[in-house]
Amino acid sequence: MAIGAQDTLVLFRDRINAISSYGEALGVLYWDLRTGAPRRGMDRRSESIGVLSGEMFKLSTAPELGEWLSRLEEKHTYETLSEIDQRLVTETRKEYDRSVRIPPKLYQEYVVLASQSESKWEEAKADNDYAGFQPYMEKVIGFTNQFIDLWGAGATRYDTLLDQYEPGMTVEELDRVFGGLREQLVPLAANIAASPHQPDTSFLSQRFDKAAQKAFSLHILRQMGYNFESGRLDESAHPFATGLNPGDVRITTRYLENDVTSALFGTIHEGGHALYEQNIMKELVGTTLCTGTSMGIHESQSRFWENVIGRSRPFWEHNFDALQKSFPGQLDVTVDQFYRGNNVVTPSLIRIEADELTYNLHIIIRYEMEKLIFNEGLKAADLPAMWNDKYKEYLGITPTSDAEGVLQDVHWSGGAFGYFPSYSLGNMYAAQFADTMERELKGMWDMVGRGELLPIKDWLTERIYKYGKLRTPSELVQAVTAKPLDPQYLVNYLSRKYSDIYKLS
Amino acid sequence: MAIGAQDTLVLFRDRINAISSYGEALGVLYWDLRTGAPRRGMDRRSESIGVLSGEMFKLSTAPELGEWLSRLEEKHTYETLSEIDQRLVTETRKEYDRSVRIPPKLYQEYVVLASQSESKWEEAKADNDYAGFQPYMEKVIGFTNQFIDLWGAGATRYDTLLDQYEPGMTVEELDRVFGGLREQLVPLAANIAASPHQPDTSFLSQRFDKAAQKAFSLHILRQMGYNFESGRLDESAHPFATGLNPGDVRITTRYLENDVTSALFGTIHEGGHALYEQNIMKELVGTTLCTGTSMGIHESQSRFWENVIGRSRPFWEHNFDALQKSFPGQLDVTVDQFYRGNNVVTPSLIRIEADELTYNLHIIIRYEMEKLIFNEGLKAADLPAMWNDKYKEYLGITPTSDAEGVLQDVHWSGGAFGYFPSYSLGNMYAAQFADTMERELKGMWDMVGRGELLPIKDWLTERIYKYGKLRTPSELVQAVTAKPLDPQYLVNYLSRKYSDIYKLS
Repeated sequence: MAIGAQDTLVLFRDRINAISSYGEALGVLYWDLRTGAPRRGMDRRSESIGVLSGEMFKLSTAPELGEWLSRLEEKHTYETLSEIDQRLVTETRKEYDRSVRIPPKLYQEYVVLASQSESKWEEAKADNDYAGFQPYMEKVIGFTNQFIDLWGAGATRYDTLLDQYEPGMTVEELDRVFGGLREQLVPLAANIAASPHQPDTSFLSQRFDKAAQKAFSLHILRQMGYNFESGRLDESAHPFATGLNPGDVRITTRYLENDVTSALFGTIHEGGHALYEQNIMKELVGTTLCTGTSMGIHESQSRFWENVIGRSRPFWEHNFDALQKSFPGQLDVTVDQFYRGNNVVTPSLIRIEADELTYNLHIIIRYEMEKLIFNEGLKAADLPAMWNDKYKEYLGITPTSDAEGVLQDVHWSGGAFGYFPSYSLGNMYAAQFADTMERELKGMWDMVGRGELLPIKDWLTERIYKYGKLRTPSELVQAVTAKPLDPQYLVNYLSRKYSDIYKLS
Repeated sequence: MAIGAQDTLVLFRDRINAISSYGEALGVLYWDLRTGAPRRGMDRRSESIGVLSGEMFKLSTAPELGEWLSRLEEKHTYETLSEIDQRLVTETRKEYDRSVRIPPKLYQEYVVLASQSESKWEEAKADNDYAGFQPYMEKVIGFTNQFIDLWGAGATRYDTLLDQYEPGMTVEELDRVFGGLREQLVPLAANIAASPHQPDTSFLSQRFDKAAQKAFSLHILRQMGYNFESGRLDESAHPFATGLNPGDVRITTRYLENDVTSALFGTIHEGGHALYEQNIMKELVGTTLCTGTSMGIHESQSRFWENVIGRSRPFWEHNFDALQKSFPGQLDVTVDQFYRGNNVVTPSLIRIEADELTYNLHIIIRYEMEKLIFNEGLKAADLPAMWNDKYKEYLGITPTSDAEGVLQDVHWSGGAFGYFPSYSLGNMYAAQFADTMERELKGMWDMVGRGELLPIKDWLTERIYKYGKLRTPSELVQAVTAKPLDPQYLVNYLSRKYSDIYKLS
């Protein structure tokens, strides 16, 4: 053996650092593209992104990396590695085996396309022009099918896509879980619709000053413990969070002048993602473990903060006064009216503005369409009609334009098929984590009622955030809650919450 | 020969495209660092920048690139190349021969340091803390001396640095040119100081609303033909322009609330740089020729727009009315008073706020200090005292803090030694170009007086901008003005202008 284990480890860690550096640089370029990059520079920028992504891909799939991995995986070497290095080896092996099946040139072409497609989507959404976007959608689907062929299909072709975002997740499991959710949530929704105690929402239909909305959003982010020395808040067509490194975790939001809480809850949502990324232990910085462990766990944090905390009664008992002062004379209602008005359950067209209950139906629609695209060959040309049919069927309403229909989300434009289920998985994880937190963090809701959110952030940091990718989703759920994932926590949480709001018997 | 000339050209052009892509990505990262990147993420970002710069450096110095160059330089091949490819080969050969002398690891360390040093400089300037910055200054000088050793000194060690920014420029030439300038400008400045017709500047000492300043700056940028679909205006501690590609050329400025024109002239200055980069011919996009041909020529454009146009009487005859309306009741003077008040010649501490005449003394101080550092071994610890001594000697005034002294400029923190002379070269080029323009563009000053600046932008595009690096500085000056560089144009321009303003006999 020409090269010792220690030298191999140094080479391996250097490579991981390089890969992580490319990831960070590309993260800045994507953030920039979506927050104000000049329009005419985008085509050339896409080519540059393609070059860098291609180089990153080469570094991630180089034969020497495979050799270093094999060397470090030898039992007597692996056992001497630190916990972090062991996990790095395992994770890198998984990514490596997946990536080497994609020819670098194909991947580079795909990245260029995905970047152009996202830009085009932004235009198409603004112009309500699905026809202009469709050729990009076709190409993105085509590339994704090529990738499935190269990776090899799981139990179904779509299983292969799911595993990218939630390791181990399958169509069989999701059919079961989503089936279970639907089974219990549909009667709950019916009870809610039948309740004579419908919340008043009339006070929400006003014009709310954008600057005041922004100031209040910043106030709440500070209350959550979002660190502004390690982040910034900008605007974009579709809100997102991006963790470049724990010292630079940026979020964006979108202000609607006729809605006082849309931007706020969007900001809290992205702020939840950001708290996760800002609080990863420093030992993981510069490695590929320095990010959330899965999309589902990531979504559990955004949706925990947005819904479990941000849409709770104690949260508004503390914060409503400040909100009223932000919009003098505009919110002349009681905190109970405000709380109930912001927790209305009603079918709606836009996923990111849906209530906590029907939200899961938005996800199920997307999940079913993705299954149809990849398991049944549904065409890009047929997406708008299918979308509208399903909204009619599941939610009883039909989009009046593609902008508020099939074009509403950025995900598909960038090829993120298999991502959407993460949102409902996040709801389930969040409810399960909250159950443990309520038992362990005594007086938790009293703290929320006093505006003291930092102990919650600290609990989450200690139990979840700091580990980054050091624990898998299932390890994490087991370690935090002492049980595997169980959708019943979400059902119970929603039942309790809406029984109170709608005074269900 | 295993590989034909055509295949070699394809490989060569692909490599140039890759190098250009890294340059663009790094440009975005630097822009981001200086316009609002979160503070705590900067150390890790510097490492990422180091990795990318190292990769770019490897691509630029790889043995195969040397082989491709040799192949393309063969006479019978070279003669078949397009003008652009010929120039690409020549330019790349020059950079290649220079770069291969720097060990990649050394260069990567240097880039990390330079990035950290620039961040540290920004803090140090804010805190007036030269001592905190000095260790970085020492290291940057140390690296630069290593580079001179590796490149080999020219006639003097400092010549080697000058050549980076203005190809072919030497200490001998600059001593002569700057000597000539000083010889004629010093008596002119004395005449000005002795004139009984000193402009009134009292109306400038007010508080001017920042938002109104910004709106007016944007108005002037539009008048100049700056394309906002290919750029954006932000704020930073030190104004700069960065050409990422011709479709994305960004500028920054810095608003001073007690000065109505500082940000405006800064914006016009950076706007001049930006017009150059926005109007390079599309055939050069994605190549390393897609930028200004030298720092001196670049500065000729920023200073042409800022001084020759922006500080001219016809410019204000058109624009003063709109400026008055931007600050109601604050500028109750005649356009002649305003014009003269903005063209006061007076010794001052801050280079970027100096008048057109004494500006050259600011440059000569920096030029002499750089010569002392690299030709005489002047130490970083001694820079503040030397700086203050020279300001006393040349301008008769002494900074009261390092923040307004040696810490005022970003250049040295990032290792840009040899850059400062470009500014005065720019003044000279600008005056010489303007002389030709006045003769060729009939009624030019009448157009300025009507706010019609686009014909000027178009003339500059046709004669200068579109060529990017396709012509060398001396080729360009010869082609545009039919003469080599002659500092007498600047002297004549300044004499004419100030004889009028100060009513000199």
